[in-house]
Amino acid sequence: MSVYDAIRLRRDVRAEFTGDVVDEGTLWRILEAAHCAPSVGNTQPWDFTVVRDRQRLRTFAEHVAGKRREFHDSLPPERAATFDPIKIEGIEDSGTGIVVTYDHGRGGEHVLGRATVPETGVYSAVLAIQNLWLAATAEGIGVGWVSFYDSEFLAELIGIPAGIRPIAWLCIGPVREFQEVPDLERFGWRTGRALSEAVHRETFGRPQDDMR
Amino acid sequence: MSVYDAIRLRRDVRAEFTGDVVDEGTLWRILEAAHCAPSVGNTQPWDFTVVRDRQRLRTFAEHVAGKRREFHDSLPPERAATFDPIKIEGIEDSGTGIVVTYDHGRGGEHVLGRATVPETGVYSAVLAIQNLWLAATAEGIGVGWVSFYDSEFLAELIGIPAGIRPIAWLCIGPVREFQEVPDLERFGWRTGRALSEAVHRETFGRPQDDMR
Repeated sequence: MSVYDAIRLRRDVRAEFTGDVVDEGTLWRILEAAHCAPSVGNTQPWDFTVVRDRQRLRTFAEHVAGKRREFHDSLPPERAATFDPIKIEGIEDSGTGIVVTYDHGRGGEHVLGRATVPETGVYSAVLAIQNLWLAATAEGIGVGWVSFYDSEFLAELIGIPAGIRPIAWLCIGPVREFQEVPDLERFGWRTGRALSEAVHRETFGRPQDDMR
Repeated sequence: MSVYDAIRLRRDVRAEFTGDVVDEGTLWRILEAAHCAPSVGNTQPWDFTVVRDRQRLRTFAEHVAGKRREFHDSLPPERAATFDPIKIEGIEDSGTGIVVTYDHGRGGEHVLGRATVPETGVYSAVLAIQNLWLAATAEGIGVGWVSFYDSEFLAELIGIPAGIRPIAWLCIGPVREFQEVPDLERFGWRTGRALSEAVHRETFGRPQDDMR
């Protein structure tokens, strides 16, 4: 699959997992793709913990369900009603979680390129996630990034040592289809904006002439 | 170009820019790729400021050169000697900078998925960068992420409003070639580690059996 097709087809998947578990060869290829990501000072500060134990998946799903209720209850009634039908995770349906973590200690004291912008460390781990996501799309594997959780809970659940930070729980599994329209648009939560609104010329806020 | 080829060929480019400027059609396609990225709550919290004014590029390059000297001077002698030949930016050579910024205010008060992990906002902007990077690679366009700068200096240089945060300066331009081996490995700064060291099973630190 071409880069542009993967970028266009990629979705944040919640409801379309088939229930089959991704095979090991495919899983390894998408992890290799993640591991090819650029990283500040070539530190590769990411780790990937693959979680498949059914009880552990259930425990995490229950925690996430609680966080979903908290968010629901924080919303004004109209927004809560819009939120109601939106599925926010496929933790058990996908059968595989990949927890991506960030180790700020990787690379020692003198990390080339991180002295002025320390956040470039964690940004590296996020770049790896997008590599993984696009490779998965090319393999017909769905990825759903779950962020309804407390970091401390997740750290405890899979035994992340102090000083290492969870960045994401990714639900990974074969899908029936990729939706054409992102869920949050389909369910009327929030629509996107035009690219031309996001592009500026020379200085921020100076509108984009059509460059095409 | 296939996803996997782009992931494999992608380099953080400093020295291989041809001096030609990326054409507007290509630039727009890679910005479209960035804009297709997933974002928490569909907030699309990124903006892209395209900088080509020669004087502005020079001013930024001089600032970065100063930060390079500061980093050099912070190193023990042996590391400083290893660092010396490493080029860290192609700001003027590439002829185009894209400043990626993050707006935490985008999406209003109730951002779906950001309540528990607020950093997912800025992570979204980083995912967009990796989309851009891979699309550029497929177009034969090099991308070099510069992080030797003070955020306040960059914000002032291109007039970023308060509350909006610069994430990256990306040097964008046609390249002669993509190096096969990352610069920091070629110059002996730091080598990568095996994927198997980064993958864990069920809990962090439990070694990966070979899953292939």
